Amino acid sequence: MKKKIVVCTDLGPALSLLTLRDDLDVVVWPDAVDTECPRAWLLKNVQGASGLVVCFKERVDGEVIKAAGPGLRAVSTISVGYDHIDLPLLASRNIQVGYTPDVLTDAVADSAVMLALMASRRTNLTTSVVTSNAWSAFQWTPFALSAPQLSTTPFSAKRTVGFLGFGRIAQAVLRRLTFGFGVSDTIYTPRPEAPPQVMRDAELLRGLMPNLHSLRAVDMHTLAADSDFLFVLAPGGEATRHLIDESFLRRMKPTSVLVNNGRGSVVDSTALAKALKEGWIWGAGLDVIEEEPHVGVGHVLLAEPEVREKCVVVPHLGSATHDTRAEMARLTAVNVLRGVDGEQMESGLDLGRWQ
Amino acid sequence: MKKKIVVCTDLGPALSLLTLRDDLDVVVWPDAVDTECPRAWLLKNVQGASGLVVCFKERVDGEVIKAAGPGLRAVSTISVGYDHIDLPLLASRNIQVGYTPDVLTDAVADSAVMLALMASRRTNLTTSVVTSNAWSAFQWTPFALSAPQLSTTPFSAKRTVGFLGFGRIAQAVLRRLTFGFGVSDTIYTPRPEAPPQVMRDAELLRGLMPNLHSLRAVDMHTLAADSDFLFVLAPGGEATRHLIDESFLRRMKPTSVLVNNGRGSVVDSTALAKALKEGWIWGAGLDVIEEEPHVGVGHVLLAEPEVREKCVVVPHLGSATHDTRAEMARLTAVNVLRGVDGEQMESGLDLGRWQ
Repeated sequence: MKKKIVVCTDLGPALSLLTLRDDLDVVVWPDAVDTECPRAWLLKNVQGASGLVVCFKERVDGEVIKAAGPGLRAVSTISVGYDHIDLPLLASRNIQVGYTPDVLTDAVADSAVMLALMASRRTNLTTSVVTSNAWSAFQWTPFALSAPQLSTTPFSAKRTVGFLGFGRIAQAVLRRLTFGFGVSDTIYTPRPEAPPQVMRDAELLRGLMPNLHSLRAVDMHTLAADSDFLFVLAPGGEATRHLIDESFLRRMKPTSVLVNNGRGSVVDSTALAKALKEGWIWGAGLDVIEEEPHVGVGHVLLAEPEVREKCVVVPHLGSATHDTRAEMARLTAVNVLRGVDGEQMESGLDLGRWQ
Repeated sequence: MKKKIVVCTDLGPALSLLTLRDDLDVVVWPDAVDTECPRAWLLKNVQGASGLVVCFKERVDGEVIKAAGPGLRAVSTISVGYDHIDLPLLASRNIQVGYTPDVLTDAVADSAVMLALMASRRTNLTTSVVTSNAWSAFQWTPFALSAPQLSTTPFSAKRTVGFLGFGRIAQAVLRRLTFGFGVSDTIYTPRPEAPPQVMRDAELLRGLMPNLHSLRAVDMHTLAADSDFLFVLAPGGEATRHLIDESFLRRMKPTSVLVNNGRGSVVDSTALAKALKEGWIWGAGLDVIEEEPHVGVGHVLLAEPEVREKCVVVPHLGSATHDTRAEMARLTAVNVLRGVDGEQMESGLDLGRWQ
C-alpha cells in the first residue's frame, strides 16, 4: 500500500519531488496556489497520512494528530517559525518535524537594507510629492527633503549600526553595510543568558576589516544612544516584548533610523508613533508589526500623516523572493520525504528536550 | 570697498564661510531656506557683484552677466550639471565657474541600490496591501508577492548587473552590489567614441575579485538580454535620448529590473509603461523621469494601477542627504571665495575650449 503525504500549501516545482515517487500517494489542497488550506479539508484529508506539509497558517495540534492516526511520521513546515506546531506532542509520538531556517538569510537581509534606505530617505513622503501632483510646484532648495545617508563618504566617514538580535541575518546585513556602504562601527546587545562571544566577534571583525573599525557588545542604553541605524532582528515572545519602548526611543538620535525584520512584538507601536511624530527619531521601516496581519490605516503607525510619511510598513515579505521561496519549498519537500522514508531530515528540529 | 557676493540659494552652515570674511559684502536671497530665488531679485541684486552663487534653477545668461557688470569674477553653482550657465559667454569674460561633481557619488549610489530593491520587491504594491486594509484578509501562500532577489545565495549564485553609463556613480553602485550583495557578473556599454578601457576594467575587476567573476563591455543587445538589474547612469542630451526604447525593453527578461538615476530623457516613458503593463520586465525604479518636474498622476507611468504598482518614482532626490548637500554647499562656498580672491577654484570647470 502506498504511503500518503498530505500537502496543504503550494510547493511550486518542488512538488514534483513528491509526485514523481511511484510509492507515494500525494494529496494536495487543490487551491494551494491561491488560497490557504481550510481546516476542514486538512482534518478530512490527513487521515492515514505518513507525511504532512504545512505552512505557518496551519495549526498542527492534538486534533490534527488524532485525525491523522498512528501512521504519521513527518510534519514539514515551509517556515522558520514553528509556533504553530505542538512540538511536545509530536516528540512524544516520535514524529519528525522539518522547517526551513538559514535559506532565507539573504532575502531578509536584502529587505532590511531596503527598509533602512526607504526609512532614511522617507520614500512614503518623497514619492507622495509626485503622486500628489506637487512636484511641478516644488521649490528646490539644497536641503529640502534631504535625509540621513546610509553610506559613509570621504567627508563623513563614521556610521554606527546597531543590532538588537545578532544572529545569522544580522551578520548578513552587516556584511552588506560594511563592504557595500562603508559602515564603520557596529554595536549589538548580547542575549542576557549567553556568555560573551569574544572569539566569534574577533573572527567577525577580522573578516570585515579594514572596512569595519569596531564591533562591540553593549547595553541597551548605548544601543539606543549610539546607533545611526538600528536593526531589530530578535525573536518574539515575552522575553523581547516591547524592548523598544518609549524610554529606549527617547534615547535615540533625531537622525536615527529603526528597522524591524524580527518580530512585531519587540517594538511598542504606540511609542514608535509618538517618537516619529515628535521627531525623537528620523524614520522607521517595518517588515513586521504588532498585531499583524490585522493592521490597516487605523493602526497607530498609519493613521496620521505626520507618522505615516516617516514609517514604511511592508506586510512581512522579507523572505518573499522567487529563489528563496523555491529553496524553502525544495527543503520542505525533501524534509517530508526523508521523514516518511524513516531517514533523518535535511533540516529537522531537535526534539530531544521533549523525548 | 568691499567685494560683493550674491547668494541665491541656501548654503546652510557653509554660508558662514562667506559671512565671516570682513572684506566681503554678502547679499543672500532672504527666503533661500524655503523658496527659489525670483529672477527679478537676482537681476536687481547682482549689480556690482564679484561673485554669484546659484543652484540649477537660476539661469546664468547674458542678461544676468550684463546686470552684474564687469566686476564679476566667479559663478559657483551647487550642482553637478551646468546646463543653466552660458559657459562660452563666461569664458569670454574670464569668469570662473565652480560646480560640485564627485561629492554626491555615494548618496546617488545609495539611491540606486534603494530603487533596485524597491522595484524588485514592488514596494508600491506591497505597502498598498497594508494601506488598503487588505492585509488581514490576505491569503498567505509561499509564492504570493514573491519577487526577484538582488543578492546571490548559496543556492542561486549568479546575478548579472548591467550599466548604461559606467562612470563614478556606476562603479560605486557596483562596489555595493558586489561586496554587499554578492553580485557575480557585470556588463556595461562603453561610450561609442571612447577607446576600450581595458586597463581600467582589469584594475576594477582585480579590486572586486573574488566576489565579481566577470566585467565586460558589451553591445546594447547583450545589455538588454543579460541584465538582471539594469542601471541607467548616462548623461542626458540628444546622444542618449530614448536609448532605452521599446525594442530594448522587449529584449529584457520578464524578471529584470530597470533603475534610472541618470537622466529622464534616456528612457522612453511610454515604452516603459507598456513594458511594465505587459510584463516584458519586472519593475522600474526612477529617480529621474522625462518632463520632470512636470510629472503627476496623469503621467503615463503613474496613471494606471497595473503600471504604478511596478514603478517607483522619486522626485530627483538621489543626492539629497544631509552630509552630501552640506559638502556640496561647502564646496560651492569655497569655489566662489577662491574665484573672488583670484585663485583657482577647488572644483572649477575647465573653460579652455571657449577661451
